[in-house]
Amino acid sequence: MKALYYDGCLKYTEEYPVPTIGAGESLIKIIISAICNTDKEILKGYRPDFKGILGHEFVGQVVESKEDCLIGKRVVGEINENCGTCLYCRTCRPTHCENRKVVGISGKDGSFAEYLVMRNSLLHQVPDEISPEIAIFTEPLAAALEIMDQVHIKPSINVAIIGDGRLAFMIAQVIHLIGADLTIIGRHEDKLDLFKSFGKVTKETSDAFEVVIDASGSPSGLLTAQRIVRKRGTIIIKSTYAEKVKIDMSDFVVNEVTIKGSRCGPFKPALELLKKGLIEFPPIDLYQLKDYEKAFSSKAFKAGFIF
Amino acid sequence: MKALYYDGCLKYTEEYPVPTIGAGESLIKIIISAICNTDKEILKGYRPDFKGILGHEFVGQVVESKEDCLIGKRVVGEINENCGTCLYCRTCRPTHCENRKVVGISGKDGSFAEYLVMRNSLLHQVPDEISPEIAIFTEPLAAALEIMDQVHIKPSINVAIIGDGRLAFMIAQVIHLIGADLTIIGRHEDKLDLFKSFGKVTKETSDAFEVVIDASGSPSGLLTAQRIVRKRGTIIIKSTYAEKVKIDMSDFVVNEVTIKGSRCGPFKPALELLKKGLIEFPPIDLYQLKDYEKAFSSKAFKAGFIF
Repeated sequence: MKALYYDGCLKYTEEYPVPTIGAGESLIKIIISAICNTDKEILKGYRPDFKGILGHEFVGQVVESKEDCLIGKRVVGEINENCGTCLYCRTCRPTHCENRKVVGISGKDGSFAEYLVMRNSLLHQVPDEISPEIAIFTEPLAAALEIMDQVHIKPSINVAIIGDGRLAFMIAQVIHLIGADLTIIGRHEDKLDLFKSFGKVTKETSDAFEVVIDASGSPSGLLTAQRIVRKRGTIIIKSTYAEKVKIDMSDFVVNEVTIKGSRCGPFKPALELLKKGLIEFPPIDLYQLKDYEKAFSSKAFKAGFIF
Repeated sequence: MKALYYDGCLKYTEEYPVPTIGAGESLIKIIISAICNTDKEILKGYRPDFKGILGHEFVGQVVESKEDCLIGKRVVGEINENCGTCLYCRTCRPTHCENRKVVGISGKDGSFAEYLVMRNSLLHQVPDEISPEIAIFTEPLAAALEIMDQVHIKPSINVAIIGDGRLAFMIAQVIHLIGADLTIIGRHEDKLDLFKSFGKVTKETSDAFEVVIDASGSPSGLLTAQRIVRKRGTIIIKSTYAEKVKIDMSDFVVNEVTIKGSRCGPFKPALELLKKGLIEFPPIDLYQLKDYEKAFSSKAFKAGFIF
């Protein structure tokens, strides 16, 4: 099958063997698979130990399964394949499983290929109302919804989002649905224009906010968050980057600020919001897998592969 | 009156004018006033703007008041004198008032003196059962209890405290009362001995903890906390210090760790626990005010002044 294989550098092949399913698994024919920042970070060396097919955002169709009722269904999939027995699995934290494999990121082939094998329990059926071009946003939208599972964001507070990229865009939509007083702080006028229907957009602010969400993808985001968060306020950090940050932690003590790291989120409410048409996106920029270099250098809001 | 005055350096005087009370205030004759690390930090330059009498941990007797029923009563006092009108006062965060004065720390004379003027609403009557030598621990014990107001520490989890100083000692006692599985991580064998009735004591650990409390007073405390906190666990930081910390924030994102700064706490439950005899302390080392140099260099668990 066609696949994008990574082993220190990225290679396109048409000779990759189609994977075979085991107990409790399904074989999925990929319809669309999208490029995430993490994929680009891996190409820069973020996961030196990973060898295999990249890609973890996908929409596909089950073509073979031990569970008959799944066959023919369109699905999206959670990316953390957990062991079920470690402390984190036993205490309702399966996405933090100590022995987990992560689709296209760690220990498991990903979705930049014609076929993918996934554990059935990680699959979510895509409602008929949702096209593949929309369903592809399930995983990043779920990551935005993780914030709502972690922190009670009240409608009557003010919230700032730092960042004007894709993740910030997802988060802005989720927060805007609550009715909270939302400000998006970005650097790029053209990107900020996309956020105008969700809240105030600005390049800088002297206001202070109860909740500040850093989705800037850069260490400067946390420093901005520290400056604009209210005392006893909450900073949610979504940004990951290779650098360490040099920061005045005593300031967080004196002001009793809460900082919360936030990662993968719940697929079910993400699909629910997509089904209801409450979330909008610019169109995804789709390429054939062999044109992966064009896809990875696309300037579109979201780029990916169509099969 | 006798007073220890700070204006860049510390001076003992017997000629300081006795303060006069205004509306809603009381004049307190100090019985005992204790030295806190913050006082030592101020001597090192932590609060270059502060000029006045140092000291904020005290037990005294009301000798003059607009509120008759207070006269003759033994009291302790909260240290943040808030404005009552700013955003933080209006939203139940008076200890974070933007215009606050802090007794002996910022904008208001402290308790290293024979007399102190305090606002009545900040005073708490000391129950007869509590001696001044015990009541003097109300403020630091309240700071430990702040953790319990901020975070739900469940009896069935494991908790680590980093630090073997006075603040760690207060926190250990509060946590030990919950029944949680408690480990205290310190550097000094002799100090750790004091903690043995509260939990396990160790110089290092390879365990992982749901809640880690940094009361080490040093930047290394946070790095240890990061190493030993469980995924989706909570780090409570009590330590303040002048240095910035260089830290891998992405690790907190990936592991969805919560970090909470924690400062002053509630006096009422602190007095309640003291009254019930549930908290114990080594004896406080007391000096005359003129012997302040000896008091500040005391190696005792707690040192202070008796009037």
